[in-house]
Amino acid sequence: MPKDHFSCPIEVRYGDLDPQGHVNNAKFLTYFEQARINYFVHLGLLNKAQAFIDVGIIVADIHVTFLAPVLFGYEVRVGVQVTRLGNKSLTVTYRMVESVSGIDLAAGSSVLVTFDYHKNETVPIPDVWREKINAFEGLDQNKINT
Amino acid sequence: MPKDHFSCPIEVRYGDLDPQGHVNNAKFLTYFEQARINYFVHLGLLNKAQAFIDVGIIVADIHVTFLAPVLFGYEVRVGVQVTRLGNKSLTVTYRMVESVSGIDLAAGSSVLVTFDYHKNETVPIPDVWREKINAFEGLDQNKINT
Amino acid sequence: MPKDHFSCPIEVRYGDLDPQGHVNNAKFLTYFEQARINYFVHLGLLNKAQAFIDVGIIVADIHVTFLAPVLFGYEVRVGVQVTRLGNKSLTVTYRMVESVSGIDLAAGSSVLVTFDYHKNETVPIPDVWREKINAFEGLDQNKINT
Amino acid sequence: MPKDHFSCPIEVRYGDLDPQGHVNNAKFLTYFEQARINYFVHLGLLNKAQAFIDVGIIVADIHVTFLAPVLFGYEVRVGVQVTRLGNKSLTVTYRMVESVSGIDLAAGSSVLVTFDYHKNETVPIPDVWREKINAFEGLDQNKINT
Repeated sequence: MPKDHFSCPIEVRYGDLDPQGHVNNAKFLTYFEQARINYFVHLGLLNKAQAFIDVGIIVADIHVTFLAPVLFGYEVRVGVQVTRLGNKSLTVTYRMVESVSGIDLAAGSSVLVTFDYHKNETVPIPDVWREKINAFEGLDQNKINT
Repeated sequence: MPKDHFSCPIEVRYGDLDPQGHVNNAKFLTYFEQARINYFVHLGLLNKAQAFIDVGIIVADIHVTFLAPVLFGYEVRVGVQVTRLGNKSLTVTYRMVESVSGIDLAAGSSVLVTFDYHKNETVPIPDVWREKINAFEGLDQNKINT
Repeated sequence: MPKDHFSCPIEVRYGDLDPQGHVNNAKFLTYFEQARINYFVHLGLLNKAQAFIDVGIIVADIHVTFLAPVLFGYEVRVGVQVTRLGNKSLTVTYRMVESVSGIDLAAGSSVLVTFDYHKNETVPIPDVWREKINAFEGLDQNKINT
Repeated sequence: MPKDHFSCPIEVRYGDLDPQGHVNNAKFLTYFEQARINYFVHLGLLNKAQAFIDVGIIVADIHVTFLAPVLFGYEVRVGVQVTRLGNKSLTVTYRMVESVSGIDLAAGSSVLVTFDYHKNETVPIPDVWREKINAFEGLDQNKINT
């Protein structure tokens, strides 16, 4: 998965499978979520131990294209990339592949909105998030201010 | 939810909630899936006892827009509508509402591909499916042959 | 299920099934949990909208005996009974049956510990819990003080 | 976890957490199941790609003792040990620990019954299972024939 700056493995669990013997479609969102959180932890923006008290990220929209069934025993890897930094929202894209065979399993994207749970309102993306993501992804300024 | 010909209740489980105290985003696909299956059972196209041996439905694409957090205690209802019948695929749309308040919780759609697991290939939508869905939804012929 | 004072239906979801075509064993705990919460709501001890901020119930121990596979389409009903009220813990027993056939699906029990999250310590069962549960179950005083 | 001959890591997923911010109690069975399957794969008794067509293992009974809440970011490791090989059933015990701190998180056991899905009846544990497990665990003959 050379185009992504970040990717992480996800272990397929027997409990993720449905009667068709494949990973159930809903679990793809679980895999994307886990990879997305690992991405933010990797960038130093989230701390696993306490992040979810203050994190203020709301998933507003999700799109998934299923490219191949995901079987038990697959070495799944999910690539994560922030492709848009707006004012109060960002877009994250995902690619799921089987590491051994290189088969593309799924592609997806989600729109996340930054939210202050204390004020109960949307807020601009914090500057530190903007800076670290921009540095990591090499987003150009025109793109990130869209 | 007057525009949908079919809708069904989904009980929010405590086990569906995540640390934010809301139904986790991945569970929306579980709710949609359950409502979609109930729709096909309602139309007499699936038998719950044995349907998933032969069903031959593959989820190819899913889109979800999250409109409001779903809380424990909500009376959730999911409306299902088939909005497109292609040759080897169909589009299903979903609306999730809170029944008491009428709040819109989510909207979504999925593209399903009809698949023969014995032949291991995509197949045309069976005629009986086409007829029953067409009759139920009142899809016009131009639309359903797209 | 005549011996239980309280029981509630649980809808089997397609997403609860595993490749054997049965409800996965882990989901039995989800079903028990949902029925247990519905029991406490029924007794007026929990409010679904806000209960899980203060609830202070910790699951300390669980035992499940699986009596029959649970299939899609089953009308599942879970009976809940508090069978012991100790000082800082209580025992809840469960019976899962298929309503149409009357087949016993599972039996189980869990030990719950009452916990104060503000003080971060176990606390005695609140008097109002003790009174309402005792009244509902008709537990005798010898039994409930064990 | 020095006493177990086999243990494996389980990544805690955000999707495993419930509103208390801990791994939900039902997920402990998912973790045990995953570790148990990895154990059988490790011993060469299961093939991840096709095992669950023929596997013929039924979970008959489960017991879990919850020792500490499992938090996001924990390095969870589950130890698995077969402690009894009967005629048509075996007992598997589990220990879940946090690898960094060494904190005990949970202990459990399950009784598994060997089942032939073609004949639809319980069957004796296959000799190859008995031999490999016995060799791996060093169970003595008196014990394994109980």
